[in-house]
Amino acid sequence: MDKAKSSKALRTLLESYASLNYPPTSIEYLNVPPTPLAFHQIVSRNRPVIIRNAMTDWPAYTTNKWTPEYLSSTMGEMEVIVAETPKGNADSIVTHEGTRYFVKPHTTSYPLTTFLSLLKSTTTDPNPSTVLYAQSQDSNLASEYFPISQDIPPTIPWASIALSQRLPDATNIWIGNHHSVSSLHKDPYQNLYGVLLGTKIFYLVSPLGVAGVKEEKVRSATYVRNREGFDIIPDSVSSSNNSDKGGEEEEEQEEEEEGMITWPSISLDDYFSLPESERSTQVEDVSDTDPWKWTKLSAPIRVEVKAGEMLYLPALWYHQVAQTVDEDEGVCVAVNYWYDMDFSGPFVSMVNYVRDMTEVVTNS
Amino acid sequence: MDKAKSSKALRTLLESYASLNYPPTSIEYLNVPPTPLAFHQIVSRNRPVIIRNAMTDWPAYTTNKWTPEYLSSTMGEMEVIVAETPKGNADSIVTHEGTRYFVKPHTTSYPLTTFLSLLKSTTTDPNPSTVLYAQSQDSNLASEYFPISQDIPPTIPWASIALSQRLPDATNIWIGNHHSVSSLHKDPYQNLYGVLLGTKIFYLVSPLGVAGVKEEKVRSATYVRNREGFDIIPDSVSSSNNSDKGGEEEEEQEEEEEGMITWPSISLDDYFSLPESERSTQVEDVSDTDPWKWTKLSAPIRVEVKAGEMLYLPALWYHQVAQTVDEDEGVCVAVNYWYDMDFSGPFVSMVNYVRDMTEVVTNS
Repeated sequence: MDKAKSSKALRTLLESYASLNYPPTSIEYLNVPPTPLAFHQIVSRNRPVIIRNAMTDWPAYTTNKWTPEYLSSTMGEMEVIVAETPKGNADSIVTHEGTRYFVKPHTTSYPLTTFLSLLKSTTTDPNPSTVLYAQSQDSNLASEYFPISQDIPPTIPWASIALSQRLPDATNIWIGNHHSVSSLHKDPYQNLYGVLLGTKIFYLVSPLGVAGVKEEKVRSATYVRNREGFDIIPDSVSSSNNSDKGGEEEEEQEEEEEGMITWPSISLDDYFSLPESERSTQVEDVSDTDPWKWTKLSAPIRVEVKAGEMLYLPALWYHQVAQTVDEDEGVCVAVNYWYDMDFSGPFVSMVNYVRDMTEVVTNS
Repeated sequence: MDKAKSSKALRTLLESYASLNYPPTSIEYLNVPPTPLAFHQIVSRNRPVIIRNAMTDWPAYTTNKWTPEYLSSTMGEMEVIVAETPKGNADSIVTHEGTRYFVKPHTTSYPLTTFLSLLKSTTTDPNPSTVLYAQSQDSNLASEYFPISQDIPPTIPWASIALSQRLPDATNIWIGNHHSVSSLHKDPYQNLYGVLLGTKIFYLVSPLGVAGVKEEKVRSATYVRNREGFDIIPDSVSSSNNSDKGGEEEEEQEEEEEGMITWPSISLDDYFSLPESERSTQVEDVSDTDPWKWTKLSAPIRVEVKAGEMLYLPALWYHQVAQTVDEDEGVCVAVNYWYDMDFSGPFVSMVNYVRDMTEVVTNS
């Protein structure tokens, strides 16, 4: 009885959120960067927005455009960290010998020129044996990519002012192609994500949609290269030296037990591959017996962020990221700024509460 | 089992909120008015703040100071609406002949000069038979009090800019003495409340503290004068002409059935009358068997807003209001501005969800 009431209340929460943020599955566009006040109003609303013309004065987008040729000529033989996986699935849940694991990528280093050549060679290969992705989210621009870090501003002025933060917590570069994906996850950061080459495809679920992402608690593991390809090696639970690869992305996930991690288990790519007619249900029409019930109620958004556009990805939004490349460029290049989120106020406590109650409602 | 889990999750929510907004029972002071951006940061955090020096250029506070003498000389015989109750308890829950009612005040009109004389005569009477309070929250400044409305600005500039609202939804004047109280309730408005004479005592509970205010669903009624004093007359459920007195305060309360209203049942004055040692518990130390358990977990705030100070009372905060007068003035005069709240984003849905779940947890 209470379970039924709790389940109904959770459904009402998601329906209410969808109706107060209508249409819930679309995203707003700004044609010019916001003022600090306007940006703070957006942040306060915790809704994603795509901002156009936010990078028109960036050398990385204009004079020193970050093409593979420019990157190679500027960085040359400097080594960069590269994640390697068999299917582009770094940091995601994989079933291996009947067990579910959260698998971190194998990481290695290549001279930038070598990495870009290898990457481009996989762009035209429909089924490469190794997928490469430069995604070392540890403020890699200031370190590995220092020579080109001058081509982007150290901070986004209107964001810095709005968020009372002189500099972002981290600035990262992402270089990959259509084989690389980031599985659904969330970060405790206000994220500004600018695309310089290619297109990023973001699948988004609001922080209230915990039930829709179906979190699973699994053992963590790491891809390790072997002669034929990759092994999946469960992380040793007594050592803690395996946590330096995934960077900040994992830190916010609660590691309740050593070696275990809670991570969203669904693929929104699968969801958006359903026929349009099956997805376009209004949330209030979603059947309680629909296998995608909670995902549909969470009103996921699919949005393409094209070169020259910047996504504001609000803190704690679940996001799954894919990418496409322009034929002549062969790579997708993006930069993101992570700003601290405000933990005061009611938001964080409430999101954690929805998470706690989702567990009560969806676990039998 | 689920009930126990739900109850624990609700407790965790309140503990988390208290720890992320530490110290939870105190309030921040600003010595100068905030910029629009700084005010929006405060609004976004949904935490109350007291602002000093926000009215230094108001005629109502300087040249045309709203003393009883000035008000009388400017308004003279103009009639104003006055709420009359036996104990100062307008809009509160009262037990009458064994039944619990939400009782609205008797309302009448007096020439302002007469009202102020009557009011001052009750200030020195420890037990007046009728308590008077000018509290007709229908933007009364622009109508009943038009002659003095020029003494205050039509809007608070930094609030207007922050909230993208040219003018407030309503501007109200409140005139009473220490016999008048407003029972615990909430409004769907961002509220700026400036005290001009006397002191207002606000008891505050955050929107998450639904369990702490113990909402009760009762029949609505109205005080009606008789020869000896007051009768309580239940509102006729077929007529709807009884809803024009309480103004906007009641509108946000869900009137689930005709003639019924859901309203907080506790008095925070009672709570703050407990010995300090019983109240000053850290939320994590509150015993599950404590009769004030949920109220304590809600971390109520008691704050005095003195003449010249302005309270920012965030939308959906429960507030109970008492007042004291300066001996030479004999009345308490305040003005408040109601600005629309932003219903988009996750906040409103989440507060309603906490309310739904509180009902599941606290009703057996």
